[in-house]
Amino acid sequence: MDLSIIGYDPAGAWIKTADTADELLRYRNPAGITWINVNDPKNTGEISRIADFFHIHPLTVEDIMDTGQRPKIEEFDNYLFIILKALNSGDPPVTEQISLVLMEDTVITFQEIPGDSFDGIRKRILNNAGRIRRMGADYLAYALMDSVVDAYFLVLDALGAGIEDFEERAIDENDTALIPDLQRAKQNLIRVRRVIWPLRESLSVLLRLDSKLINDVLKPFLKDLHDNIIQAVETVENYRELMAGVMEVNLSSVSNRMNGVMKVLTIISTIFIPLTFIVGVYGMNFVFMPELNYPYAYPITWAVMVLIAAGMLFYFKRRRWI
Amino acid sequence: MDLSIIGYDPAGAWIKTADTADELLRYRNPAGITWINVNDPKNTGEISRIADFFHIHPLTVEDIMDTGQRPKIEEFDNYLFIILKALNSGDPPVTEQISLVLMEDTVITFQEIPGDSFDGIRKRILNNAGRIRRMGADYLAYALMDSVVDAYFLVLDALGAGIEDFEERAIDENDTALIPDLQRAKQNLIRVRRVIWPLRESLSVLLRLDSKLINDVLKPFLKDLHDNIIQAVETVENYRELMAGVMEVNLSSVSNRMNGVMKVLTIISTIFIPLTFIVGVYGMNFVFMPELNYPYAYPITWAVMVLIAAGMLFYFKRRRWI
Amino acid sequence: MDLSIIGYDPAGAWIKTADTADELLRYRNPAGITWINVNDPKNTGEISRIADFFHIHPLTVEDIMDTGQRPKIEEFDNYLFIILKALNSGDPPVTEQISLVLMEDTVITFQEIPGDSFDGIRKRILNNAGRIRRMGADYLAYALMDSVVDAYFLVLDALGAGIEDFEERAIDENDTALIPDLQRAKQNLIRVRRVIWPLRESLSVLLRLDSKLINDVLKPFLKDLHDNIIQAVETVENYRELMAGVMEVNLSSVSNRMNGVMKVLTIISTIFIPLTFIVGVYGMNFVFMPELNYPYAYPITWAVMVLIAAGMLFYFKRRRWI
Amino acid sequence: MDLSIIGYDPAGAWIKTADTADELLRYRNPAGITWINVNDPKNTGEISRIADFFHIHPLTVEDIMDTGQRPKIEEFDNYLFIILKALNSGDPPVTEQISLVLMEDTVITFQEIPGDSFDGIRKRILNNAGRIRRMGADYLAYALMDSVVDAYFLVLDALGAGIEDFEERAIDENDTALIPDLQRAKQNLIRVRRVIWPLRESLSVLLRLDSKLINDVLKPFLKDLHDNIIQAVETVENYRELMAGVMEVNLSSVSNRMNGVMKVLTIISTIFIPLTFIVGVYGMNFVFMPELNYPYAYPITWAVMVLIAAGMLFYFKRRRWI
Amino acid sequence: MDLSIIGYDPAGAWIKTADTADELLRYRNPAGITWINVNDPKNTGEISRIADFFHIHPLTVEDIMDTGQRPKIEEFDNYLFIILKALNSGDPPVTEQISLVLMEDTVITFQEIPGDSFDGIRKRILNNAGRIRRMGADYLAYALMDSVVDAYFLVLDALGAGIEDFEERAIDENDTALIPDLQRAKQNLIRVRRVIWPLRESLSVLLRLDSKLINDVLKPFLKDLHDNIIQAVETVENYRELMAGVMEVNLSSVSNRMNGVMKVLTIISTIFIPLTFIVGVYGMNFVFMPELNYPYAYPITWAVMVLIAAGMLFYFKRRRWI
Repeated sequence: MDLSIIGYDPAGAWIKTADTADELLRYRNPAGITWINVNDPKNTGEISRIADFFHIHPLTVEDIMDTGQRPKIEEFDNYLFIILKALNSGDPPVTEQISLVLMEDTVITFQEIPGDSFDGIRKRILNNAGRIRRMGADYLAYALMDSVVDAYFLVLDALGAGIEDFEERAIDENDTALIPDLQRAKQNLIRVRRVIWPLRESLSVLLRLDSKLINDVLKPFLKDLHDNIIQAVETVENYRELMAGVMEVNLSSVSNRMNGVMKVLTIISTIFIPLTFIVGVYGMNFVFMPELNYPYAYPITWAVMVLIAAGMLFYFKRRRWI
Repeated sequence: MDLSIIGYDPAGAWIKTADTADELLRYRNPAGITWINVNDPKNTGEISRIADFFHIHPLTVEDIMDTGQRPKIEEFDNYLFIILKALNSGDPPVTEQISLVLMEDTVITFQEIPGDSFDGIRKRILNNAGRIRRMGADYLAYALMDSVVDAYFLVLDALGAGIEDFEERAIDENDTALIPDLQRAKQNLIRVRRVIWPLRESLSVLLRLDSKLINDVLKPFLKDLHDNIIQAVETVENYRELMAGVMEVNLSSVSNRMNGVMKVLTIISTIFIPLTFIVGVYGMNFVFMPELNYPYAYPITWAVMVLIAAGMLFYFKRRRWI
Repeated sequence: MDLSIIGYDPAGAWIKTADTADELLRYRNPAGITWINVNDPKNTGEISRIADFFHIHPLTVEDIMDTGQRPKIEEFDNYLFIILKALNSGDPPVTEQISLVLMEDTVITFQEIPGDSFDGIRKRILNNAGRIRRMGADYLAYALMDSVVDAYFLVLDALGAGIEDFEERAIDENDTALIPDLQRAKQNLIRVRRVIWPLRESLSVLLRLDSKLINDVLKPFLKDLHDNIIQAVETVENYRELMAGVMEVNLSSVSNRMNGVMKVLTIISTIFIPLTFIVGVYGMNFVFMPELNYPYAYPITWAVMVLIAAGMLFYFKRRRWI
Repeated sequence: MDLSIIGYDPAGAWIKTADTADELLRYRNPAGITWINVNDPKNTGEISRIADFFHIHPLTVEDIMDTGQRPKIEEFDNYLFIILKALNSGDPPVTEQISLVLMEDTVITFQEIPGDSFDGIRKRILNNAGRIRRMGADYLAYALMDSVVDAYFLVLDALGAGIEDFEERAIDENDTALIPDLQRAKQNLIRVRRVIWPLRESLSVLLRLDSKLINDVLKPFLKDLHDNIIQAVETVENYRELMAGVMEVNLSSVSNRMNGVMKVLTIISTIFIPLTFIVGVYGMNFVFMPELNYPYAYPITWAVMVLIAAGMLFYFKRRRWI
Repeated sequence: MDLSIIGYDPAGAWIKTADTADELLRYRNPAGITWINVNDPKNTGEISRIADFFHIHPLTVEDIMDTGQRPKIEEFDNYLFIILKALNSGDPPVTEQISLVLMEDTVITFQEIPGDSFDGIRKRILNNAGRIRRMGADYLAYALMDSVVDAYFLVLDALGAGIEDFEERAIDENDTALIPDLQRAKQNLIRVRRVIWPLRESLSVLLRLDSKLINDVLKPFLKDLHDNIIQAVETVENYRELMAGVMEVNLSSVSNRMNGVMKVLTIISTIFIPLTFIVGVYGMNFVFMPELNYPYAYPITWAVMVLIAAGMLFYFKRRRWI
């Protein structure tokens, strides 16, 4: 576990790390905005300490500690509780649970995987970049959610590049690994969708929510975030349709190839089987076979066989098999 | 039939079993919370006796006795009536109807299959573990429903492990038992879904219900329960998609194998059929066949045949069949 | 056409049949509840006579006479008009239109097929069984609808038994009648669904309806009826999924069989085609074929052929075709 | 273009035709109900003249002239504007746009195809049949819409008869025209659905509309019309399912046939290929082949061959291939 | 980047182009309606200058500059912000983002691709054609959106013509390029749908919006636009169904062809394989083969072979294979 605290107001900003919850809470910023970040929230005692301090409901604490939660937004008397899932590139993409508690002047975030997901925001605060220092805790919460959602598009772009690969492989009917690979990609997509889909609903809830914790000034930003999530959902749906298309093209390729194979077999077989029968006839050892002694029997046999072969080829041609 | 009664308040707790409804009702706790549990509710007389005592509607009694009910929540003047279905591992999973009547200070549960589904709750009450002794009858009802829903995930995990098996078997195209096995697993999943699905709706009803029987303090717990059920529903939907994927991978494996078989057959046939015709020609017994007497006819015939075979192999290579 | 009238109150009950509407209306019960039943409503004049007497809208009369109506519930100023469809076992199941006019103290039913669908209710009234004599006209209407819905489950159970048959037949890939039989069963199911499905909606309407014709006491009964209809709808959906499963298992059986056939053909062909070529070679009649005179040529040829066959079997084994 | 005007009140009715809009408008009935019918509305000038006279919005005029509109109902200050599509039998069914402007005492209809769609209504007005002469302009509009919807069922019945044909053809696996025919029928159905589907929504709008142009007396009639449209929509959906069923039965027939063909080929081939090899062996011309001189070699060879054939047939029998 | 400004009122109209935002803003029309058009909005500075002047929210500016937005309508205090996507013919169709800011007397449009999409509107303003000069800024915004939506139908008509091509190609089972071509067309359709679909929702929002920026007079026009978009959406859905139909017809064609090929192979093989065996028998070189010396053995053999062939043909005929 890994605790850090950032305090800021339009005039300045500072960051501190702490080893215990008690140390952390001492650093709290009474005047401006405080952002507490907890990495890898495993230590129940410390988290309960923080929760008690901010009057956070025990069920919220349970949800923070259980990383199998689905994205949701819950309103409590004194805070909003938001769970979302960050996505990191990989095959399959790695899912990370981010819990976010938004209070009047304080935001607490809990990250499942220690890492630098929020480094960009940290820098914007410390360097006073953009409007973040001039806005409230609600804007900080928005900025954190926005950075999580932006990362979805990186993962989606990687998946999209994979689909273009599949489209090229689809017409190669010898690529027997295509379907298992495609299936794996589909399952990655299902995984991604499970992360993004519930967020759409949560954001709608957040937009309709009439909470005193969210300033009217923030509404256009949340609408924008909602639009981004809808775009991510639509991209996922689009990828699913493209993947289904890859499957169909491949099935049709394989079936076309099969057809070609069958046709060659049929043509060769149907031409030579009767001819082989004819030569078999004159290979019989009967004593009384008048044809065998006719001087022109051999060339006549050849002529008959050529005629049969030509007739068959003509028939195939007419039925447009060759 | 098997009757037990538990009484508790923050200060203490006791448990008693009874043979008849009358005996049971004598034990009722006037001050604290009373929980009556009826196993295997078959004896109409005894159940009517209990129902009359607590002013339970005749239709509720009918629903309790008929174990073919679907999960639902009904509000009556003096009680809430909840039917849910417990799931026990097995192939197919065993379904058990749990009926629950929530009154002001009393909870009555009816279990179809005598067993220890609620043993954990019983111990928490008797040992004063967690917050259960300090809360009302509504929390007891929540805790009972929660323990039923928790058991769903055990069954779902077992099904999930089965799907991983299927994914391995999918690429073995000789496994002719895969599809029937998969179909059986699918039907188990359908069965599980029929148990979980209506519960989601019932919980939504319960959340919106403005009943005096449910304290505001309970709302976050019910929301949490609702989230769990949604997660179970989504897991079921996810499993269905994974199973459909297994099917597709297997169909594609089988069809790839078929293609391979066809190709070998075609190549062997198309190479040897013309050669067999040629050797047949020189097996004919015509008296006048000039080639037969040419000294180099035999090696020339071999050379021609090798050329034909090589030409065909080259053609197959060029069309990328081998 | 066939007219009967039943009058009852908690104290007593009587039944009369009549030949004409005028005779029937004379029997009307001024104090208690009156139930008029019309079998096979074809005679426009008589029905109009009844309709005029009770101030029934001309469109209602048209709907009663036209047996192609879909289930619905319509509220008029002085009555509720309910159309539902009874199902009788058979292949395909026989549908019968039941029209029901509920007024303050009177229920009029119109049955398309003369029969004893409502005999159970009649006996309960005449023998004072259950609570029916103590309740109003609205309860009579409920009891009639309930008896129609109960009969659905008989038809559904028959269909369900048929599905179990199909599941056994699915793995017999020689059963070429399976698919047409399955298709016929599916169409029966579609027919049943068309009867049940709109009823669900109608009952919801009835539950929300705030009509003075329906007493509050009846609400739990209507909810129960609604639950039953939902259960019937879900059973139908479940059967459809099971039937789709039967189809998939059968397709996979047939395709597995096909694979087996192809494999045997390929193995026999690919082994013997090269051998047949070899024996053909030494059947040629060239004068100069040195091998023919070698003393060990014949056993060597056999040895070569056995080697080729063994090599091929080994190759098939390694590719796991046999 | 072709203009006609009908005036009526309970006491009488008359019909007139006109060449120009001005002449037509002179005939207008100031006291009773006026129905103006315009066939083939191509002449912009004349239609604008009528539109100006009745204060019809320019967009309504545009919609009337553009026959590619979808069914809809729009409320304007002084009139209701209704577009629906008439269907006439044919392959594919012919679609005709009907525009209807309902004002207080006047109905104007625009028919795309000159014809007698509304002749029945005209006769009912002139002969004072039914209740039409006693009702207002809103009932006339209803009667016109009703006659359009009634005609849908003629087209649907023709399609339904076609489906029965398909069901018989489905099991004939040599009927290669079935799938294209079925596809054409499906597209006709799609066309019909596009005409009926939006009307359902429009009628719902009309039912909810609280317009002073529609008398309360008309409500049951509109509900009835709505029911008819829903029935038409359900018939369409039902036909689609039946067609999908035809497809499945046919695919299964074709695949069964294919299986039968493959089996015969395999059995004949696998029996004779080894036998042909054996006779080939003894057709070889090696000088030293001891068997050739054994006196019983020939009958022994036959015996061996019969044994092999019998063994194979037994094997096929045991695997239930024959 | 490319800036132009049009000012108009019922009395007159003028157009000017500008190089910088400052120059542009000087031309602004204080009395009548002003329409500013920005082509290829890449220059952040200039756009910020315009945005600041008209008090446009920074998020709107971001959306204008990012051409990956989905169609939407957002209401701000002093303006409506509309994003839509223009479609230009091509394979794949080219998408262009159009952003539109509607203020009280001013409309600002941003076009991603410099071009003449709006030339028709420009001419109507300058030539005082139609009602545009007499209406407000809201009508201008409507006219611009309408011209974008009208262009959709050009693209849809091109796709529709392509589908007719596909329908002809579907029955040619040698057209192996059909499926990839169809897939590409499907993806174009998906692309088009993604552009049109969200617009439907946006227009619904616009219709329900009670903004002072939109005059009541405009409502019928917006309804008309909404109808057009719904028609476009339905056309897209219709095309998807037609494409699925093409796929099915093609699959069935290919499978029919395959069947024909298999049947010919089977018939030829099954007839000649036994005959070839027979001639092989009498090609054996056994010393003691009594038949060989019978004088009529040869014609009898022929007779037997003809009988076998005839019997097989009769069998095939009876099973309706030929």
